[in-house]
Amino acid sequence: MGQGKNAFYAQSGGVTSVINASACGLITTARQHPDRFGKVFAGRNGIIGALTEDLIDTSRESDAAIAGLRYTPSGAFGSCRYKLKGLEQNRAEYQRLIEVFKAHDIGYFFYNGGGDSADTCHKISQLSAKMNFPIQAIHIPKTVDNDLPITDTCPGFGSVAKYIAVSTREASFDVRSMARTSTKVFVIEVMGRHAGWIAAAGGLAADADHDIPIVILFPEIEFDQPSFLARVKEQVEQYEFCTVVVSEGAKNPAGKFLAEQGTRDAFGHAQLGGAAPVVANLVKDAHGYKYHWAVADYLQRSARHIASRTDVDQAYAVGKAAVEYALAGDDAIMVTIVRKADDPYVWEVGKAPLAEVANVEKFMPREFITGDGFGITAACRRYLQPLIIGEDYPPYAGGLPDYIQLKNQAVEKRLGTGYTLA
Amino acid sequence: MGQGKNAFYAQSGGVTSVINASACGLITTARQHPDRFGKVFAGRNGIIGALTEDLIDTSRESDAAIAGLRYTPSGAFGSCRYKLKGLEQNRAEYQRLIEVFKAHDIGYFFYNGGGDSADTCHKISQLSAKMNFPIQAIHIPKTVDNDLPITDTCPGFGSVAKYIAVSTREASFDVRSMARTSTKVFVIEVMGRHAGWIAAAGGLAADADHDIPIVILFPEIEFDQPSFLARVKEQVEQYEFCTVVVSEGAKNPAGKFLAEQGTRDAFGHAQLGGAAPVVANLVKDAHGYKYHWAVADYLQRSARHIASRTDVDQAYAVGKAAVEYALAGDDAIMVTIVRKADDPYVWEVGKAPLAEVANVEKFMPREFITGDGFGITAACRRYLQPLIIGEDYPPYAGGLPDYIQLKNQAVEKRLGTGYTLA
Repeated sequence: MGQGKNAFYAQSGGVTSVINASACGLITTARQHPDRFGKVFAGRNGIIGALTEDLIDTSRESDAAIAGLRYTPSGAFGSCRYKLKGLEQNRAEYQRLIEVFKAHDIGYFFYNGGGDSADTCHKISQLSAKMNFPIQAIHIPKTVDNDLPITDTCPGFGSVAKYIAVSTREASFDVRSMARTSTKVFVIEVMGRHAGWIAAAGGLAADADHDIPIVILFPEIEFDQPSFLARVKEQVEQYEFCTVVVSEGAKNPAGKFLAEQGTRDAFGHAQLGGAAPVVANLVKDAHGYKYHWAVADYLQRSARHIASRTDVDQAYAVGKAAVEYALAGDDAIMVTIVRKADDPYVWEVGKAPLAEVANVEKFMPREFITGDGFGITAACRRYLQPLIIGEDYPPYAGGLPDYIQLKNQAVEKRLGTGYTLA
Repeated sequence: MGQGKNAFYAQSGGVTSVINASACGLITTARQHPDRFGKVFAGRNGIIGALTEDLIDTSRESDAAIAGLRYTPSGAFGSCRYKLKGLEQNRAEYQRLIEVFKAHDIGYFFYNGGGDSADTCHKISQLSAKMNFPIQAIHIPKTVDNDLPITDTCPGFGSVAKYIAVSTREASFDVRSMARTSTKVFVIEVMGRHAGWIAAAGGLAADADHDIPIVILFPEIEFDQPSFLARVKEQVEQYEFCTVVVSEGAKNPAGKFLAEQGTRDAFGHAQLGGAAPVVANLVKDAHGYKYHWAVADYLQRSARHIASRTDVDQAYAVGKAAVEYALAGDDAIMVTIVRKADDPYVWEVGKAPLAEVANVEKFMPREFITGDGFGITAACRRYLQPLIIGEDYPPYAGGLPDYIQLKNQAVEKRLGTGYTLA
């Protein structure tokens, strides 16, 4: 229905090292269909760009610059954390969006994000029916948390998984070298507020050829302090060292984040994002082992230098498919990854109705976690391993990745009115 | 003087992502001179292996395995933190070393480490004169801290510098994407207890093509809280975001580590290694900016996946040169890197008397730090940039670096006596 119309594209929520690869797939593909697509306008800072009529004209970027998005991490157009309210609660917001879309002749809405963004995209798709404004709304999945339903995986996750698996292996080699007279326990904290997918990736550091003792603390498993401490002791007694991968979402039996139970700054403020030091101190107090800890934080989700080739390919593919589904008339869908085989991994793109996606979170199934709650099973490994396969190195200049920076020129405003965010 | 004798090689202190490349250079080169060298015996866990007669027979490893050391991080033979006392304070320790060296016909002593290890190596070199035991002692430099004198740089440092520069650029791209509605300040904590070389590398993330606001806190510059907070505010007002690189060695005016002034765990214990959360909280309290922080810890020094090619080449070269200097009759020296030109970087190996190396620490010169104390100068960039040039990717299997693990078979003991470490 949007034939010849312009497209709106926006990046939403926490960014990843491959979300720009999706933008690359989308813009490149749209450029191949000048008869069907007008321009692609990107929202500056996500949906906020639409509300404030702050649009970026991607047609002003060269093909080379758009190609560079494939290897550039973060959100090239800016992202935001902003969730639209329901149509009934804030009708004015939707009226404003329609006003902006009309003013810029927008007939396609592409939203690149996680669970909250799928919900926003779903609400936009309802504008056609509920507010009589014709638009095709397509969601492009992106989240390092890997918690979207239906799709085999979420672009962004594979690269974080690879980063955490690689870093866990490397740090474990380091600790093993030092264990005789120095550090015996290394704790690495990883992202994943609700789901333990990223923590699980730490388990890949060990395999048949690399016998590394790894203890994982998942958000899905209630933290059992005595059995955790016993497990670490066992491992140190057997291997002389032990690596602990703790999810930022790990919780104690009272349902409190480990990070919160713990540290306070000099002013008595609770320190968030510090599950690693809390866990390291528990080990030290119980066993006296010398420890080191790391908090990877944003490093893990921006580490394009060690992105998974599989993940980059999938990120590009979902951006490309979004345009193709739009051309085929699809609306109110999320593009998905469909797994056809594990080993070798075979996948293709597919689609799912947004109504089945919005507000559903996918957690680690219990059968992916070992009986004792501290490791990953063979089934989990079968699922995860293909997602980190392959390297996809960016170009370097002066020893550093030569990431692209777009001009991001604004589309001239057509509305006389500003807009104040709710 | 050691003609035909066996060699002792050991890794000492904190390991790096390229110390095994030095072992590779040394063992490979020694194998090329069977007429001059017997076997290379590695100390299991550094000098402790010599004291306890726990030697590893590297001749049992295939050429392919030894070649694999070039791309394997950490200490393949184990390392230790153990400093020999002076000859006068613990004569028994030296007598034990001589006993072990005699029993295994060792005439060469190669010690791969930092400042403390240079001191140990120096003491060993005195055995010839003071205890009438003929041995050639050669120090092979290794330290991520880059604080050894005379040598242009220390193998290990270039790769950490590259990791920190790359990670700082990537995380800065991430924060910039989020700044409109979320995180505005990102703090990354890096190693360097006394010298700010690693922190300085964070400054490389910004350049003429990548305009990124970076504020660095060096150990060499006393922390000035009001001017730091003002600087961060300025940057956020200009760029919407700011990245802070804080050295673990940054100190307040009372000479206390920032990490110590700050956080305590639930039991009231001081949390070490936590300068980043302390700094992040200061910013939050003063300006209310949303923040994220990361502590790279061991990840930075074990990150062989993003090693600097220059660093790997130098690490290999100093190992190789150690053997060549030994063949030429040298004793009581450290192998060095000599810079001949900045751009393009031209270097060669050289040597320095251990007497001039032991117990001298090299700090950042004041002219490498900007007047305000928060950045690096052009002179610093001219020094640092060549050290991170080039990539040297390890082989991968199953999506992970396929690092080598040696057999590390023990040499049969010849002494009837054990040894208890002091």
